[in-house]
Amino acid sequence: MKALVLFSGGVDSTTCLAEAIKKYGVREVLALSAGYGQKHTKELESARKIAHHYGVKHMELDLTPIFADSNCSLLKASDEDIPHESYADQLKKTDGKPVSTYVPFRNGLFLASAASIALSNGCSEIYYGAHSDDSAGSAYPDCSEAFNSAINTAIYLGSGKQLKVTAPFIGMNKAQVVARGLELDVPYDLTWSCYEGGDKPCGVCGTCRDRAAAFRANGINDPALEV
Amino acid sequence: MKALVLFSGGVDSTTCLAEAIKKYGVREVLALSAGYGQKHTKELESARKIAHHYGVKHMELDLTPIFADSNCSLLKASDEDIPHESYADQLKKTDGKPVSTYVPFRNGLFLASAASIALSNGCSEIYYGAHSDDSAGSAYPDCSEAFNSAINTAIYLGSGKQLKVTAPFIGMNKAQVVARGLELDVPYDLTWSCYEGGDKPCGVCGTCRDRAAAFRANGINDPALEV
Repeated sequence: MKALVLFSGGVDSTTCLAEAIKKYGVREVLALSAGYGQKHTKELESARKIAHHYGVKHMELDLTPIFADSNCSLLKASDEDIPHESYADQLKKTDGKPVSTYVPFRNGLFLASAASIALSNGCSEIYYGAHSDDSAGSAYPDCSEAFNSAINTAIYLGSGKQLKVTAPFIGMNKAQVVARGLELDVPYDLTWSCYEGGDKPCGVCGTCRDRAAAFRANGINDPALEV
Repeated sequence: MKALVLFSGGVDSTTCLAEAIKKYGVREVLALSAGYGQKHTKELESARKIAHHYGVKHMELDLTPIFADSNCSLLKASDEDIPHESYADQLKKTDGKPVSTYVPFRNGLFLASAASIALSNGCSEIYYGAHSDDSAGSAYPDCSEAFNSAINTAIYLGSGKQLKVTAPFIGMNKAQVVARGLELDVPYDLTWSCYEGGDKPCGVCGTCRDRAAAFRANGINDPALEV
């Protein structure tokens, strides 16, 4: 294997998977998804469908025990509701601190797990779909560019310079990621991003709003809403 | 809780636990141990005894699935033998690459897991027992000072500046860590470091040699060898 892709089954990581497969070929790519005690498993189900679509090797990891004591509103263990408002409005209430849907250091944990698995499988590259809109101000500090830079350095040095992290969309916004994905013929109808676990995406949570806007900027409706 | 201590049950992390308890008091400290598919569980048994000795809250995490594909010689899944020679001699054979007992990005994964758990439990500090001898040249790149610095920055930024990593021994060598532990009355007879899982430490693996030398430098024999 040459590249491991952090793969949630959402818009960004699916586009990233398509990018890695285009570069390395499907047999040299390992897609890694992680459960962490989410209120629903729609994302993981989407990830499985998309991995099947591409015929790529797909590994699933269960990190739920690590978040057993977290009160993050995305988690089953939490009694908090998922907010239905924009990140800007949420940040007014948290006084600039991470929002209630911030899963504590989740991206750091995902990348560290990915590093261990990538090295165990002979990969020299981790692909992940971070982009410039990801941190939503200070809502998700483990998506900021400064964080990405530090964790990338940590993985490069901590692996004995055997492994690097590639974030092909780091200089793009979400609309530009979608534009690239449309070129790559990404099956966006199979992706799932909504924080709720309904039959269809709710259309009003932070992440539903964000992806709808990205598709609109490309002149189309969100394909997941039209399934 | 105020501080989480990465706690393997070995010399360094037990001294680190003693340091955190001295600073914060035993009720404000959470000790975290992780299994990762080691050939034996002597370290975890030691960790339990030491946690009981101090009366500190102790959490155990099983990260074995993450290393399922690794061929590291410390792991049950591997068919490689654990080398019985100094790190300097091992590095001659690996041409400066990580040695066969390097568990891929283990310290990065431990620290990332610790960050998620620390934030979930309201801790603002992770204590861990890294010291200047730890990387043994390039044998363990995830113990180097440059790695430590990068992962500490990643955790601070990725937590929204809510969590910092404290490595109280980073400027010390192992003999100095032991000197500090003797002041703190650390129960070194309960610790376990040996890579083998015998009734007594083997005395010849890299880690046995290192700890024996550290105790000798303090004018005593390794207490674990005298139990």
